[in-house]
Amino acid sequence: MTIQSALKALERLLGDRLVTSDAVLAQHGENETYFTNTPPDAVIFPENTEDVSQIVKLCNMHACPIVAYGAGTSLEAQHLAVQGGVVLDFSNMNSVLEVRDEDLTAVVQPGLTREDLNTYLRDTGLFFSVDPGANASMGGMAATRASGTTAVRYGTMSDNVLAFEVVMADGTIIRTGTGARKTASGYDLTHLLIGSEGTLGIITELTVKLHGIPEAVSAATCRFDSVEDAVNTVILTIQSGIPMARIELLDDVMVRGFNTYSKSDLPEKPHLFVEFHGSPTAVAEQAENFGDIAGEFSAEDFAWTTKLEERTALWAMRHKAHYASWSLNPGKKFLATDVCVPISRLAEAVVKAKEDSVRLGLTSTIVGHVGDGNFHCGVGVDTDNPDEIARVEEFTDNLCKLALRLGGTVTGEHGIGVGKIKFMDAEHGAAVPFMRAVKAALDPNNILNPGKVIPTATDKR
Amino acid sequence: MTIQSALKALERLLGDRLVTSDAVLAQHGENETYFTNTPPDAVIFPENTEDVSQIVKLCNMHACPIVAYGAGTSLEAQHLAVQGGVVLDFSNMNSVLEVRDEDLTAVVQPGLTREDLNTYLRDTGLFFSVDPGANASMGGMAATRASGTTAVRYGTMSDNVLAFEVVMADGTIIRTGTGARKTASGYDLTHLLIGSEGTLGIITELTVKLHGIPEAVSAATCRFDSVEDAVNTVILTIQSGIPMARIELLDDVMVRGFNTYSKSDLPEKPHLFVEFHGSPTAVAEQAENFGDIAGEFSAEDFAWTTKLEERTALWAMRHKAHYASWSLNPGKKFLATDVCVPISRLAEAVVKAKEDSVRLGLTSTIVGHVGDGNFHCGVGVDTDNPDEIARVEEFTDNLCKLALRLGGTVTGEHGIGVGKIKFMDAEHGAAVPFMRAVKAALDPNNILNPGKVIPTATDKR
Repeated sequence: MTIQSALKALERLLGDRLVTSDAVLAQHGENETYFTNTPPDAVIFPENTEDVSQIVKLCNMHACPIVAYGAGTSLEAQHLAVQGGVVLDFSNMNSVLEVRDEDLTAVVQPGLTREDLNTYLRDTGLFFSVDPGANASMGGMAATRASGTTAVRYGTMSDNVLAFEVVMADGTIIRTGTGARKTASGYDLTHLLIGSEGTLGIITELTVKLHGIPEAVSAATCRFDSVEDAVNTVILTIQSGIPMARIELLDDVMVRGFNTYSKSDLPEKPHLFVEFHGSPTAVAEQAENFGDIAGEFSAEDFAWTTKLEERTALWAMRHKAHYASWSLNPGKKFLATDVCVPISRLAEAVVKAKEDSVRLGLTSTIVGHVGDGNFHCGVGVDTDNPDEIARVEEFTDNLCKLALRLGGTVTGEHGIGVGKIKFMDAEHGAAVPFMRAVKAALDPNNILNPGKVIPTATDKR
Repeated sequence: MTIQSALKALERLLGDRLVTSDAVLAQHGENETYFTNTPPDAVIFPENTEDVSQIVKLCNMHACPIVAYGAGTSLEAQHLAVQGGVVLDFSNMNSVLEVRDEDLTAVVQPGLTREDLNTYLRDTGLFFSVDPGANASMGGMAATRASGTTAVRYGTMSDNVLAFEVVMADGTIIRTGTGARKTASGYDLTHLLIGSEGTLGIITELTVKLHGIPEAVSAATCRFDSVEDAVNTVILTIQSGIPMARIELLDDVMVRGFNTYSKSDLPEKPHLFVEFHGSPTAVAEQAENFGDIAGEFSAEDFAWTTKLEERTALWAMRHKAHYASWSLNPGKKFLATDVCVPISRLAEAVVKAKEDSVRLGLTSTIVGHVGDGNFHCGVGVDTDNPDEIARVEEFTDNLCKLALRLGGTVTGEHGIGVGKIKFMDAEHGAAVPFMRAVKAALDPNNILNPGKVIPTATDKR
């Protein structure tokens, strides 16, 4: 009962659909951040749910690790087969199965990317709101509890999945949730699976919420002398009940990254990028009310627009934050980490993070979904320089400890994966054994993405 | 190891804090619906979390059932000790521990009622949104995944709890979630506990979201010739992105109940009651846009107001739906059931439910949170009349089967408790054994509210 015996059994079942070519294995060991390439032993491209069920059943019989793979855009190595075994690449299960426009829902396969879903929806007047930046797969986004710039208005994946079809560790196919918008029926397995990173079951179908494309959109930008002024603007805006669709904080270093990468010429000070959705009257009123609040905190250069081309340029720039941050660290690998704190502690968290990066001699950008208290630090890493690796590790460790000290979480949207597993005990304490009990109950042979989320003795910090 | 041995051990620990007087036992066996009075063996009023932990630990050692009790307003007998044992009445743990106005959160004890929380918040400009009608406790609302009239805008309990302190079955005190507005860290035990009806852990503290009291509120009413016209108005309103704060459907029988109970003189036709929250400009615009859509579906007597006294009168009437429905069934017990379907199937569901109640010779009102596809039927039951009991049971059984056939759920907000447990297999199928595995992993001695949520062989339907 080993990976090798599983591969033999899988080959009997699948023939040359069991892919073991070096190129494909290496491709599935790659990642967008600083983790070492970690190829699996084999890759399979399942065609349908029954396929997944049979493969998982075999893997379970042979105690062979199995890792679900979407678009490979995870930032904490969730998609890497760190204990070897089989990767299930869902790129062939990428269909929109149904759009129910009266219900504002869609039924999709997990390999579909969010951009492909929105392209498909183009003529319906509806859109799928969750937008983590990367063109991630729907299954991967659900599995990592992804969110992004629009979460402050439309919610995270946790708020936008109504139902799943899931293959459990023994190959059983189950359904969680229903087509109704809410339910009080039974344990909420849907939410238990969201953010479980493929360790409790493998998602083979999702029913997600859609939203009406707003009649009008306005976007605004302004800059501040300090991060505190920017955050206080956000707090007062939220308290005032102004419904923001997006509200993004960029620190001076991030602005420098944009100026370098996107050839903009913004003053290198903290900025807010904001967006409002609604009727033409509403978005005009909201932008102006926001401008008044920003003015109370000495904002400069407040400007708003409803023009599509200006808005597109703004958010195109914002979406390149990952690469713009990277561009400040030429020739290095890149680590994008995130934490989330109560918004009342956000200014303190951002200021302390900036001080720490300076102290450690690192170039870190900060960009945040500030309405949620969630922010990202982007740091270059020269993986040939042990001293720099140590300093980057110290930086991210300090950031996580800071977030916990301020009553927050070590990750708002990137997930635990491998990178944050050492903080599971610090964040969840006495709850970890109960998470482990749930894992053992649902995946007794520990075949589903082993090594992720649930710490073992060596992962302690 | 019996209930009796547990009671002896608890008496040693608690002295006369272990209450066994007939009056208190009977009071905790009562319910607002048709279930037989089911007194527990003892009642304890815990003072703090450590108290709860010690009591649960003892009950676990003696395999004694333990049931958390809030305000006793459950509609599916969630709070009844159907297998005997101990009821933990949280009325002494009813404090607001902290209001974090910058974070729009509050930390509260489970025995606090939602009305007391909102009274406490009166001067802060903030409110707690979830409103199931009854003045339920916060712990009970979380445990049953309650929602209500405002869920269409502000969400259900599932959307409004950020964090818990929980006593697990072995007495361990854990914390789930954090003070941050979102997290991607570890399994979502918070959501696993929401709606678990006290069967996986006992909530001893909640961190909940608050919302800013809107600057302006407008309310509107209109009536329709048919349920279909009313539902189509709602669908188009939602598709148009008009942000409704409340949208309630009342059928002709419900309107008759209001006319009887609240001395109103509404025409006995389907009505919509709607509310909008926002700036004065926005709520005026939204009410008028809604009126235009309603007009397309031949609405009559469309009227809207921002006047506080008129709005209060409207929602006071709506909140008395339970008693107004009951008033149509004088001298009987009363069953309030709920299902939830995709909104595209709502008109069909309501019409079929009405036909079935007429066929069975029952007087059933229908009132629904129609933006969510969730509706309630209120039926009188003469519990001394076996034939009527059988017809009521046939009616609710048919309603549940109908909801499932239409892609919905057997309960949108009342929960499973005892009343709906026979439909767990029909709704969840192959997922039930995994729910049972989670229950066994977290409560191996089955002490936490046994007999609820998870069906045994005899609960099958």
